[in-house]
Amino acid sequence: MSEAVTAPAAVGDSEFDRDTAVTERAPGLHDIDLSEGWTIFGAVNGGYLLAVLGRALADTLPHGDPFSLTAHYLSASRPGPAVVRTETVRAGRTLSTGQASLLQYDEEGREVERIRVLASYGDLDALPDDVRTSAKPPAIPPPGQCFGPEGSPVPQGDQQPIADRLMLKLDPATVGWALGQPSGKGEMRAWFGLADGRDHDPFSLLLAVDALPPTAFDLGISGWVPTIELTVHVRARPAPGPVRVAITTRNLAGGFLEEDAEVWDSQDRLVAQSRQLARVLRG
Amino acid sequence: MSEAVTAPAAVGDSEFDRDTAVTERAPGLHDIDLSEGWTIFGAVNGGYLLAVLGRALADTLPHGDPFSLTAHYLSASRPGPAVVRTETVRAGRTLSTGQASLLQYDEEGREVERIRVLASYGDLDALPDDVRTSAKPPAIPPPGQCFGPEGSPVPQGDQQPIADRLMLKLDPATVGWALGQPSGKGEMRAWFGLADGRDHDPFSLLLAVDALPPTAFDLGISGWVPTIELTVHVRARPAPGPVRVAITTRNLAGGFLEEDAEVWDSQDRLVAQSRQLARVLRG
Repeated sequence: MSEAVTAPAAVGDSEFDRDTAVTERAPGLHDIDLSEGWTIFGAVNGGYLLAVLGRALADTLPHGDPFSLTAHYLSASRPGPAVVRTETVRAGRTLSTGQASLLQYDEEGREVERIRVLASYGDLDALPDDVRTSAKPPAIPPPGQCFGPEGSPVPQGDQQPIADRLMLKLDPATVGWALGQPSGKGEMRAWFGLADGRDHDPFSLLLAVDALPPTAFDLGISGWVPTIELTVHVRARPAPGPVRVAITTRNLAGGFLEEDAEVWDSQDRLVAQSRQLARVLRG
Repeated sequence: MSEAVTAPAAVGDSEFDRDTAVTERAPGLHDIDLSEGWTIFGAVNGGYLLAVLGRALADTLPHGDPFSLTAHYLSASRPGPAVVRTETVRAGRTLSTGQASLLQYDEEGREVERIRVLASYGDLDALPDDVRTSAKPPAIPPPGQCFGPEGSPVPQGDQQPIADRLMLKLDPATVGWALGQPSGKGEMRAWFGLADGRDHDPFSLLLAVDALPPTAFDLGISGWVPTIELTVHVRARPAPGPVRVAITTRNLAGGFLEEDAEVWDSQDRLVAQSRQLARVLRG
């Protein structure tokens, strides 16, 4: 008897969709149970949290697609119950602006804010088709020549819950750090998708920009690199299939660094750009 | 009788400092009169407004230097009275996070929000001296070989109030658009300072990142390019003297573009990085 062929999960009916869905308790107040499944070394992944906040804002604002979304990470989120408070700052014809906070409760039942987000939303399908992009897609070998957690020297996400949910294949040129030979260039490149085959949408792009190992590893730094602030611009609705993510750091100074990510879809379209400011905590 | 030699204005005692100073009316509530002097074609400059909001947050938070500041521009500010509401989101040891809104009043006396800001502040002087920056300062000819409003073909700011307050000298390689010959590269480079000789500080860097003509001009687009969202990272306290600002656009698509700015000080240090998402409104 042959194994049943599993069909890829559909957008709207996948683990990612279920785990990022918020339930509206009252206008501007949403409940969510942060899933253990998106943790790495006990910490809930920042991109997953961004998708949760992004969906709560999409439910709140008259427009459904994040165009520009900025998050300040205030304290570490834990798996379990959380609430998202949302506010409409401005509802315009083409764009709407909103604000959101992710909150959890400490042992004494006090609210602790985890993340605050400020974002402008629009309708990606309403944009004209003009493209005059001088940026070029990153040169990444085909996925079969890239490194995933299985049978690779890369410990990224190994045996971590999130690893089961991601399809992450690192460019061999940016995995030297795992063998003690970082390139020193501050680059990280990978193919990225959901493990269950769900295609990308604007919310999974929020996950894509913060799912690779830190570029600091490629600079020979092995400590924790917590994100202070992350801004994503979603520029187009992604075509089906995995995306390519290229991240670079140009300025490591004073204990902080920026990480710039570009996300390219299967049609060679630059679908998202992000920049984060992160702190380098030496191990 | 010879003309009196005017000494350069000092940080803290210059037109920029006076025009961005907010007065605290109550905790979290600040008054300001937005100066006519920082307008261009009737609109108050976005970078000047950022400096106003940035100073109100510095007065509110336990830390005084903007590390990462994001602004969403909601409606056009007009010269005249405005209020800035500020809120401390989180006060930490190394970093504090705050939020601010700039508000004005319409004819019926209703509050209209102009800009909302989310920012994290720290202490630039407390940072270690390590610098491992792979970015290179832009190659700009000396100021004497660059173009200012006086006697140049560039109409930027000509006879506009803000032009009297800025020292802006554009790289000849990025002024072709003013002669009908845009390079098509989406670049803009300039020397930038205050006209009264005031040296830079973190707040004038907020002005620096949004003071050059739009890169869209260098792409052959002449319409208005309003900023939707702008994020600035201030990475070091700038040394005395004018800074060099280099702005590039890599992705013009769907009627939107990003503008990435780097600001370099006289000691060849990358003191600020910014990215904005702007909309292209065809003229």
